[in-house]
Amino acid sequence: MNQEVKPSLEVCFSPALLHLYDTRDKIVVIIDIFRATSTITAALHNGAKCVIPVASVAECIAYGETLPNSITAGERDGKVAPGLQYGNSPLEYPTEFIKDKTLVLTTTNGTRLLHMVEGAAQILIGSFLNLTAISDYLLAQNKSVLLGCSSWKDRYNLEDSLFAGAVAERLNESFTINCDSARSARHLYRSSGGANFIEFLKDSSHYNRLSAFGLENDMIYCTTPDRHPVVPYLNGKEIIV
Amino acid sequence: MNQEVKPSLEVCFSPALLHLYDTRDKIVVIIDIFRATSTITAALHNGAKCVIPVASVAECIAYGETLPNSITAGERDGKVAPGLQYGNSPLEYPTEFIKDKTLVLTTTNGTRLLHMVEGAAQILIGSFLNLTAISDYLLAQNKSVLLGCSSWKDRYNLEDSLFAGAVAERLNESFTINCDSARSARHLYRSSGGANFIEFLKDSSHYNRLSAFGLENDMIYCTTPDRHPVVPYLNGKEIIV
Repeated sequence: MNQEVKPSLEVCFSPALLHLYDTRDKIVVIIDIFRATSTITAALHNGAKCVIPVASVAECIAYGETLPNSITAGERDGKVAPGLQYGNSPLEYPTEFIKDKTLVLTTTNGTRLLHMVEGAAQILIGSFLNLTAISDYLLAQNKSVLLGCSSWKDRYNLEDSLFAGAVAERLNESFTINCDSARSARHLYRSSGGANFIEFLKDSSHYNRLSAFGLENDMIYCTTPDRHPVVPYLNGKEIIV
Repeated sequence: MNQEVKPSLEVCFSPALLHLYDTRDKIVVIIDIFRATSTITAALHNGAKCVIPVASVAECIAYGETLPNSITAGERDGKVAPGLQYGNSPLEYPTEFIKDKTLVLTTTNGTRLLHMVEGAAQILIGSFLNLTAISDYLLAQNKSVLLGCSSWKDRYNLEDSLFAGAVAERLNESFTINCDSARSARHLYRSSGGANFIEFLKDSSHYNRLSAFGLENDMIYCTTPDRHPVVPYLNGKEIIV
């Protein structure tokens, strides 16, 4: 008798907890809903050639000077960082602007987590914008998965966990979940009702912070499921689809 | 016009995240539901003179040799640790046994967090067994609070978060909560229905681990609210009520 061995699903709530997880040979999904992974997903679906995630503004500028047809982007404290051209909003990258360009992007939380992951079989970019595409892809691979929340300066945040819960809910039947973070994320997702995520997130630290910068429309966009059904993945230094 | 300034309430999900919080001049509540803080609460309510939490088995033995009328206790991997007399179960410490004795206790997670906290105004011991007593005490102090989950080897766990959510739910009106961990804990608590906690926790890592050691009755005991209405606090090296 063949007993089916299911792959495992775990959730990591903060880069400061990543060392507790074995990422080797797993598929790791980077989650930074507000807004790095949402922006990356949108830009790639809208035709960007690739996205190069970098840690610092200086590195971003250096790439921009050497790469043809590239644009540099990134924010610090809700504003375009000095020396860069664009910000970290998915609304800034419609097809007519971003098509065939290389987007060099620096962000505080998402980029950092992405560069911390070691030995993974694959590193993917997850957001509500590609929720079903990512979930379906993971279901098809039969490989263990770690959903990695970028958090906010290492602090647990609600929106990344909510998305992790949305994925865990979809993967539950086909994966072994023996991880309280994943269980908690599923409870959170079910608390949200599974729809109108932005309403649920209005009582969250990041909503408070970004709405003070007037970025409500960004957050509505970032919590709209399946607007950009692609599966971005890291290939060397580039994120492509 | 007097505008009331409410104290803040935050939740820390793991000792590995404690450095993100400023504990100075706050009341810090140590939470280790399965089972350190439950056992401490039970033993003190049952008349123990004090509890001395220590990090290692060797330290526990050394204290036991010098302190009159003391007993040494602690487990490693669900069994009484070699060299110690008793385990880490609240059921082991009824009044007829523990009254007027000093309990020297070593545990893996709870003790560690307790010793990591710096500069707090007060360090309290929280568990379902003293849920209402702790909540009422915190409501009366008008001081900012950090609820510290001991977790499991730094990994987020469901039972400590559930208890943090139960406290946060009771304190919500009187405290400012701008902490996504606290919001998440409240969502979790509300998911549980606020009763029959053990049923809710049957799908958790710790329940799986401890039930494999036959400790279901311990866990039922540890999730029974208000059995031991005391407020244990750290006084030097001793926990007293």
